Amino acid sequence: MQADSRQVYFLSNGTAITAETLGHSLLAQFPGLHFKTKTIPFIDTLEKAHAVSAEINQGVDEQGELPIVISTMADPELKKVINQSKALILDPFGDFLPRLEKILDTASSNQGGRSHRIANPSLYESRINAIDFSLVHDDGCKTQNYDETDIILIGVSRTGKTPSCLYLALQFGLKAANYPITEEDMESERLPVPIRPFKNRLYGLSTDPNRLANIRQERRPNSRYSSLEQCRYELRAAEEMYYRHKVPFLNTTTISVEEIAARIVEDTGLHRVETASGLSSQDDG
Amino acid sequence: MQADSRQVYFLSNGTAITAETLGHSLLAQFPGLHFKTKTIPFIDTLEKAHAVSAEINQGVDEQGELPIVISTMADPELKKVINQSKALILDPFGDFLPRLEKILDTASSNQGGRSHRIANPSLYESRINAIDFSLVHDDGCKTQNYDETDIILIGVSRTGKTPSCLYLALQFGLKAANYPITEEDMESERLPVPIRPFKNRLYGLSTDPNRLANIRQERRPNSRYSSLEQCRYELRAAEEMYYRHKVPFLNTTTISVEEIAARIVEDTGLHRVETASGLSSQDDG
Repeated sequence: MQADSRQVYFLSNGTAITAETLGHSLLAQFPGLHFKTKTIPFIDTLEKAHAVSAEINQGVDEQGELPIVISTMADPELKKVINQSKALILDPFGDFLPRLEKILDTASSNQGGRSHRIANPSLYESRINAIDFSLVHDDGCKTQNYDETDIILIGVSRTGKTPSCLYLALQFGLKAANYPITEEDMESERLPVPIRPFKNRLYGLSTDPNRLANIRQERRPNSRYSSLEQCRYELRAAEEMYYRHKVPFLNTTTISVEEIAARIVEDTGLHRVETASGLSSQDDG
Repeated sequence: MQADSRQVYFLSNGTAITAETLGHSLLAQFPGLHFKTKTIPFIDTLEKAHAVSAEINQGVDEQGELPIVISTMADPELKKVINQSKALILDPFGDFLPRLEKILDTASSNQGGRSHRIANPSLYESRINAIDFSLVHDDGCKTQNYDETDIILIGVSRTGKTPSCLYLALQFGLKAANYPITEEDMESERLPVPIRPFKNRLYGLSTDPNRLANIRQERRPNSRYSSLEQCRYELRAAEEMYYRHKVPFLNTTTISVEEIAARIVEDTGLHRVETASGLSSQDDG
């Protein structure tokens, strides 16, 4: 018996980002089904744990169907309360920590919310600097410091340069600039002047013309800018530029910013900075 | 026998973001130990899987110590190759998918890299719009559209407003503006004019004065701006403002941007948009 929309909970005594990320990956393996998801972070007292467990059990009583719980509770007392709920409990900490303790010959700390604390101050400083850098060097705004960049994304307007750069900075700690290819640039056989000396740091983005036209249409309806003809022309000219100058590029039509960023790092052999526990907040430009 | 620096691999036939996120959460439970981590994404052919497995086995032969593998390989053939490596294999898909298949009465698709494909076009549009909005409304640059914001972060310079806003937009799809509190603002008992009508969307950031002085010192060494005295004064004045106007606030000294964002969402009851599989790239301001 299949439900229309199975209830799924992502639970944690920390941010619940790990539970959500793992949970979404697992649910994505069932593309034909619909899920109703709810994230409950910071379950850090027995009172809160009992309240969440009661909420889960009440849902079962009302819907007559077991919900799915993906839980990264580290505290044993709190975990016990959650794990007694009427649900299919998927508990990666419970399954994996004992095996890690054994191979590492060390007891785990059993503390929740450790992964998004600041573990390495110099590491998060570099991540924050990368964010600052990427903001300042967005959209060709500032082209003087390109010698400091890890990567320069290029592409015509609305191909995904800005969010990809921000993600490269936030997630991977990379200094990512981006430079928009304009019509003027397309008329030359040479690379635009500001990026010409940095050919080996360039990475191109492209997309499907229909898709680009739809996106541009929302910004400037019924304009030359958003016409399918113009989008076709610009994308073709940009790809010709990539081929001519041997700039690696990616068609981003169906892939997310996360995947674009991961593919760029992989294609270019850039060092993927270990930032998962390193992003501080102590900076805001 | 404990190693100084145990080798850990995060493996996936997709972006490896899930393997990394889960892996870091697990390793954070062993704060006294050091790990050497390596992420290998896009292991999407048998050839690549065999090469990775050979690399793992070679490491064992050289170091005489079993590495740890956190693997989210979905493809059964590729998974089999990886799981035969000489390592402690932690395989959440292998452990959890059969249990999900049973409760859902549906076979999983066994396809890798699904979670960072674009699942819901309207959802990623809203996420991209949130990023655009947050960029335009950074650092009090533009204050006209505050009626459209989900949240306005306030705080003195370098307390984490910008990266927190970007993360709120990227991860949670929220339109997050930020407004810097200046010395002029501190001299008034009233809220600054641009944010005054939006009192119930304000959220304050604060931090430790020593920490703030250190961070400012890197930007403008030996200046009034970076003096401990000035940092103390500004932070105290900002907190007084938060108390006077009942603005909720968070001390960000030891917590990461991820946790700041998750706590803000939790404290304010904002809707946490399900973006894990929804961030498109098709836009770049």
